[in-house]
Amino acid sequence: MSEDEAAQGTTEVVIVGGGFGGLNAARRLSSAGPASLRITLVDRRNHHLFQPLLYQVAMAGLSPADISTPIRSILGRDPRVAVRMAEVTRVELTERRVITSEGPLPYDYLVLACGATHAYFGHDEWEEHAPGLKTIEQATEIRRRVLTAFEQAEIEPDPERRRRLLTFVIVGGGPTGVELAGALGELSRHTLSRDFRRIDPGATRVLLIEGGPRILAAFDPELSRKATRDLERLGVTVWTDTRVTKIADDHVEAGHEVVHAGTVLWAAGVRASPLGSSLGVPLDGAGRVIVGPDLAIPGHPEVFVIGDQAHVAQPDGSDVPGLAPAAIQQGNHAALNILHDLRKEEREPFEYFDKGMMATIGRASAVAQSGRLRMSGFVAWLAWCFIHILYLIGFRNRLLVFIQWVWSYVRYRRGARLITERDWKLGADAAAATGERSSPAADDQAEHRASA
Amino acid sequence: MSEDEAAQGTTEVVIVGGGFGGLNAARRLSSAGPASLRITLVDRRNHHLFQPLLYQVAMAGLSPADISTPIRSILGRDPRVAVRMAEVTRVELTERRVITSEGPLPYDYLVLACGATHAYFGHDEWEEHAPGLKTIEQATEIRRRVLTAFEQAEIEPDPERRRRLLTFVIVGGGPTGVELAGALGELSRHTLSRDFRRIDPGATRVLLIEGGPRILAAFDPELSRKATRDLERLGVTVWTDTRVTKIADDHVEAGHEVVHAGTVLWAAGVRASPLGSSLGVPLDGAGRVIVGPDLAIPGHPEVFVIGDQAHVAQPDGSDVPGLAPAAIQQGNHAALNILHDLRKEEREPFEYFDKGMMATIGRASAVAQSGRLRMSGFVAWLAWCFIHILYLIGFRNRLLVFIQWVWSYVRYRRGARLITERDWKLGADAAAATGERSSPAADDQAEHRASA
Repeated sequence: MSEDEAAQGTTEVVIVGGGFGGLNAARRLSSAGPASLRITLVDRRNHHLFQPLLYQVAMAGLSPADISTPIRSILGRDPRVAVRMAEVTRVELTERRVITSEGPLPYDYLVLACGATHAYFGHDEWEEHAPGLKTIEQATEIRRRVLTAFEQAEIEPDPERRRRLLTFVIVGGGPTGVELAGALGELSRHTLSRDFRRIDPGATRVLLIEGGPRILAAFDPELSRKATRDLERLGVTVWTDTRVTKIADDHVEAGHEVVHAGTVLWAAGVRASPLGSSLGVPLDGAGRVIVGPDLAIPGHPEVFVIGDQAHVAQPDGSDVPGLAPAAIQQGNHAALNILHDLRKEEREPFEYFDKGMMATIGRASAVAQSGRLRMSGFVAWLAWCFIHILYLIGFRNRLLVFIQWVWSYVRYRRGARLITERDWKLGADAAAATGERSSPAADDQAEHRASA
Repeated sequence: MSEDEAAQGTTEVVIVGGGFGGLNAARRLSSAGPASLRITLVDRRNHHLFQPLLYQVAMAGLSPADISTPIRSILGRDPRVAVRMAEVTRVELTERRVITSEGPLPYDYLVLACGATHAYFGHDEWEEHAPGLKTIEQATEIRRRVLTAFEQAEIEPDPERRRRLLTFVIVGGGPTGVELAGALGELSRHTLSRDFRRIDPGATRVLLIEGGPRILAAFDPELSRKATRDLERLGVTVWTDTRVTKIADDHVEAGHEVVHAGTVLWAAGVRASPLGSSLGVPLDGAGRVIVGPDLAIPGHPEVFVIGDQAHVAQPDGSDVPGLAPAAIQQGNHAALNILHDLRKEEREPFEYFDKGMMATIGRASAVAQSGRLRMSGFVAWLAWCFIHILYLIGFRNRLLVFIQWVWSYVRYRRGARLITERDWKLGADAAAATGERSSPAADDQAEHRASA
């Protein structure tokens, strides 16, 4: 009752998604909004994930927690902000409420920032053989597959099968594909070479397959060439203009070739969150919701869509790219327009400020472009390191990532070379676990019981 | 051919298990053994796990990779040492070979250091509801359950169910149980209290249930009392002389009481690796192989069993406790006796040098005893921190753990508050992943569906 009364004069803003877009919308509303605001951020996960460094988790350079921050601890101080860990199943636009696994959430304003997942272009059966890289779980699964491939190659007597185990295919030559391929080349050439006895990790074959005419298609052609050259220096073979037509357990068909590969990674395509299609509003070809210049759905000024989930047209006809800075700017802008509404001011159209983009290839090698500036090699790599540390959330994560990068750089090593399994139970398989150290604790107890 | 010829004069030592015992046996053989030695260390995992800090992974203080080191990178430099990631299925004593998932390994000497797993005293069905803490996977599963319980309590309107979600039961009052209970008390009192809006994490109920008359039974009674008092100060309720008779999805039956609990953790009993029972030699009540004073199986001087897998009688009739220092000493001693054999010297009997033991209760609180020395409180805690950093393997891990401890101490925070799911795929299951945890979530989902 009293809660209802108190809620009379309030404005309920629901934000779905704790990525760059949603988080920045919540922060801006929290810092600049009136006391009457109630902000609820819903996410399936309890953490904000710093996606740009996820490939380093997959490549055993960083730990998952180093690039994750609990959403609660980012937003926890403002009493107007509530964080709910729940799954959003659909949005009821006319009823103005979001249906979640933990009940409905009514809203006055809704900000959808659900991001994108990868897409297999109608070949969902490829996922089992070629995981993509969007979540922590996928990153640790990729890490498991890559490290296990080297372990198995070490004890494989048959040269044919050893060759297959040491062949890695990455599908897709965008920044993620390039970063994975470069890190894999480096991992095998430098990091693992000293630790394996019977295989020569330098014999590893890393194949980057791109359907278009060049890798890093969004970059300046000169940078694409430089990236290709740097990848080749790390032992990566780059195939362009090559389409993958089949991905099976032990091979990939691409162009007219069959590549026998033990590990295949998918970095080829994304599709906006499926939540958009439940709205019944126009979507673009990638499943993104087409929004107006104010970032709201035409006809639904109370619903904003931002980040990778939104198709935002620019004056020149192109759309805003799916990059972290774009999502951050849109999060801030959606918040700004909500605040304009509350103050009975006119909304402003979103203008994308293009900060440029960058991709890292390996140790001391990256490409970057910003405006008319082009950078590559060591300078671009230093800039990349600096900017990524800067954008990481929280002092602890910045410090831990920085230390691990310095250590990796100096020692040519990767610290998180940990193979973990999917199942936690001790079932028949795990029961024969070797090398598992017991804690004194339990032993004492066992003795205690045995003697009791 | 040439390999066979070269192998004529060699001695094959196979070590099963990369825990404290196996690792130290391999290191000692590598450093002090002759050039003719061939050492193969087999482990199901690619990493050595620093088990004493595993509870900090479960309690979101550290990342898994911070307490794990690839076995290869520890032993990788000596060309006489080979590391194989494989599962050992059985040992054929008469044929002198170890059968692994990747083929047989013949040996001249065998060192079994397979450790122990936890045991549910004939109630294996309890595992699903009460995970133990022996592996990285179990630690992250416990972390997921604990953090998810708080998240669900935050959005649970029913006070009865909220109370259940915030009730945590730890079964077993040895060091692991005490450490888990203390960390849980601290997590709810200090770390999470600022981040949750609707629940008072201080209302969390942490219950430590011990079957014997006191917790930390192996310690001095005075230290048990101090530990109990410090636990109670953190909000932990300690029940001694209480046996758990049933563990179900949402409650525990202990003594004559029924405790409704959302999360139950198992720290009550261990059993030696089942590999021991395949040997056909005498075992003790906890499944440990009974070895002679030289640590070899009587009648099989070429087979050593060490660490938690071994029952080593001491002159006073007691057996060597299952502690890390004991495993380290036994690993070194087994190596020493192999070297004695090679030099045609007499074997030496193992003498356990009791360095004492310690358990931490929480921030600035621990108990420790060594010889006639007794320590508690801040001093014991500092000693605990120092010794555990010292025993960690690798500069990187030491530095990362140290930094995170300092950060946690200063900021009253835990950095690895990451909920990860079991499944990595994007499929239908993973999409509904938030509802996976215990009944409350599933209930909500069911209700939601019913109303839809």
